[in-house]
Amino acid sequence: MNIQTPLNSILAVRDQFPAIPPGWHYLDSAATAQKPQAVIDAITRAYGHDYATVHRGVYERSAAMTASFEAARAATAALIGGGEFEVVFTRGATEAINLVAQSWGLANLREGDRILLSGLEHHSNIVPWQLLAERVGAVIDVCPLDPEGRIDLSAAESILTEQHKLVAFAHVSNVLGSILDARCAAKIAHKVGAKLLLDGCQAAPRIPVDVAAIGCDFYVFSAHKVYGPTGIGALWARKEILDSMPPWQGGGAMIDRVTFEKTTYLPAPSRFEAGTPHIVGAVGFHAAIDWTQGIGLDALHAHESALVAQARAALRTVPGITLFGPEDSAGIVSFGLDGVHPHDIGTILDDAGVAIRAGHHCAQPLMDILGVPATARASFAAHSDAADIEALVEGLYKVKRIFG
Amino acid sequence: MNIQTPLNSILAVRDQFPAIPPGWHYLDSAATAQKPQAVIDAITRAYGHDYATVHRGVYERSAAMTASFEAARAATAALIGGGEFEVVFTRGATEAINLVAQSWGLANLREGDRILLSGLEHHSNIVPWQLLAERVGAVIDVCPLDPEGRIDLSAAESILTEQHKLVAFAHVSNVLGSILDARCAAKIAHKVGAKLLLDGCQAAPRIPVDVAAIGCDFYVFSAHKVYGPTGIGALWARKEILDSMPPWQGGGAMIDRVTFEKTTYLPAPSRFEAGTPHIVGAVGFHAAIDWTQGIGLDALHAHESALVAQARAALRTVPGITLFGPEDSAGIVSFGLDGVHPHDIGTILDDAGVAIRAGHHCAQPLMDILGVPATARASFAAHSDAADIEALVEGLYKVKRIFG
Repeated sequence: MNIQTPLNSILAVRDQFPAIPPGWHYLDSAATAQKPQAVIDAITRAYGHDYATVHRGVYERSAAMTASFEAARAATAALIGGGEFEVVFTRGATEAINLVAQSWGLANLREGDRILLSGLEHHSNIVPWQLLAERVGAVIDVCPLDPEGRIDLSAAESILTEQHKLVAFAHVSNVLGSILDARCAAKIAHKVGAKLLLDGCQAAPRIPVDVAAIGCDFYVFSAHKVYGPTGIGALWARKEILDSMPPWQGGGAMIDRVTFEKTTYLPAPSRFEAGTPHIVGAVGFHAAIDWTQGIGLDALHAHESALVAQARAALRTVPGITLFGPEDSAGIVSFGLDGVHPHDIGTILDDAGVAIRAGHHCAQPLMDILGVPATARASFAAHSDAADIEALVEGLYKVKRIFG
Repeated sequence: MNIQTPLNSILAVRDQFPAIPPGWHYLDSAATAQKPQAVIDAITRAYGHDYATVHRGVYERSAAMTASFEAARAATAALIGGGEFEVVFTRGATEAINLVAQSWGLANLREGDRILLSGLEHHSNIVPWQLLAERVGAVIDVCPLDPEGRIDLSAAESILTEQHKLVAFAHVSNVLGSILDARCAAKIAHKVGAKLLLDGCQAAPRIPVDVAAIGCDFYVFSAHKVYGPTGIGALWARKEILDSMPPWQGGGAMIDRVTFEKTTYLPAPSRFEAGTPHIVGAVGFHAAIDWTQGIGLDALHAHESALVAQARAALRTVPGITLFGPEDSAGIVSFGLDGVHPHDIGTILDDAGVAIRAGHHCAQPLMDILGVPATARASFAAHSDAADIEALVEGLYKVKRIFG
């Protein structure tokens, strides 16, 4: 099999990824992205040359590191079209959603209020809302999907009532790759006075994002999926909302004045960043954003869309295959093979040097909707190319041979 | 001035710290530790060679990274004498304390219950308890200090009642370096049925810690202060307590089964680690622990104690100086200079190549007790030596000349 490889001429970046050796086909970028050398170098330099704490030191090294840390915040905001002081650094997208649920949610939701999620959400965009709903007595509604696996916004519109205080949707599905019409989602949420939170984990590395143009209220994503380091992510929230939110975690760096009688807090975003932050994580995040923007999200999306089209066409040649999700998915293809558990697919592909994800992808409700216990998932990134797809499909023929 | 340097023959590790150039005197290790090359190398290798997600991948690289991640947990537990499944990785000590306050605290404290803190606590060991106390209607008591700046445990004993559900003390003060008699604190807390949480941020890098011998219930510390990476820390809790604690943050990796009707959770520690963890942070933490244990906490404590004795003796030669804290402080010396604001001390010392911290050190109540707005603080680490002390004292003479 020889799949056409015009894309290699567009994004020839594979040699910038030292952890992808020749002959290894990494198709699990939706779980976590491999890191370009530029990001690794930024991290190494931060620890090995520039290291100091931030926001507190009276010496020049610390002032310089503080400037780097805050420059990372500005770059993170700029990546998604937000304002610099609207970005809170968190441990990752999961913590960002929990922050919104436990700060904004506890302050704003009451018994009988409703939250609208969708059937394709990642557990991180379900469980925090369940914990909140249990605590305040709110109710969760679930928006169905259209036949291709997109969140059905006309169904959402008919579900939404003035009891709904929040709509929380994935911008791009981590299983199906389906892209939400985010502007439309914002409009229908706002029509009933609900806020819109978007889980941008799979969108931020794959498609251009502009929170101002979308008109959403909260946007969350993780650095490690945007070619950046582990342990850091971002919550963006509209400034007036962020400023109104009460503290969630207490500690150093988020206070104005502490006495045992009365403690007062700094304004956002500092109010939500208790403790020494993930300083080097922010520096690495910045390098990752610079690297990603150096390629451009339009180019990345075009690259991954072409790979998805090639992959879906090539996968269809495998007898017994089922492809999930829409044709125009963003960089992610989930599939099943008749009579073979996805875990076995993953194991045999691993022997063939192809790394995919097999499982429920932290989206068990979606598995129930699809009527399967699990799927196999191939996901692409800047370094992916036709040879990866070729190896995937060849591996699946090997699976077929083994399972007869 | 020539200060004797017998210690250089004991811990000759300065050349292992690439971010400390010749002639720069880093005396802010209590804020954050510089990193030995071994730690930086472990991080670089994790991103540049071994990188994959954990706990989910069906391919070998992910299985290997999962083994590394869990080995880091075991090493973290072993450092402080805890059991492997008693350690939860958090963003840092601050998040660890907030986790205890918002999970264990909300489940166990009721209106009228009492929490005992001390006058020397870091804000991270005050504000989470204030937020909890406000929410449940509990009351915070403050244990006074003895004249040398140690938590006065006989005072604590007379304050404690059966209404007290928790005692939360710093194991080593981040301002004064004073060491708590932790075994005694555990005994008097348990006598009234209260749990003991120890903030080990300054203890873990400086003195041998054994939670089993101490008999405490919770222990928290941050990797970045133990020569490790930013963005990761540990909560240790006695297993039966940890197992009884309800989930705090929801998301992937902490659930057993998610449906929109009913979600069930994994046992601890997974229950408290929602989302993709700081994978490389854990690997770097492990390397830092190995490096620290390679030297040995007894040797580190002896080294820093000798430096503290030298520093206090040398500082006393400076006219107008005030030294805070006990003579036997662990690696930390706070001081003031008559008529000079600590911030000015810090700035002039910076010009002289000496990096100290000046401010309230996230311990404003202690500043109130000491009767000063701020202190200057020099803190030591494995790489510190007599030349650092010499530069500090020479710098203070320069401050004296400038301020006449």
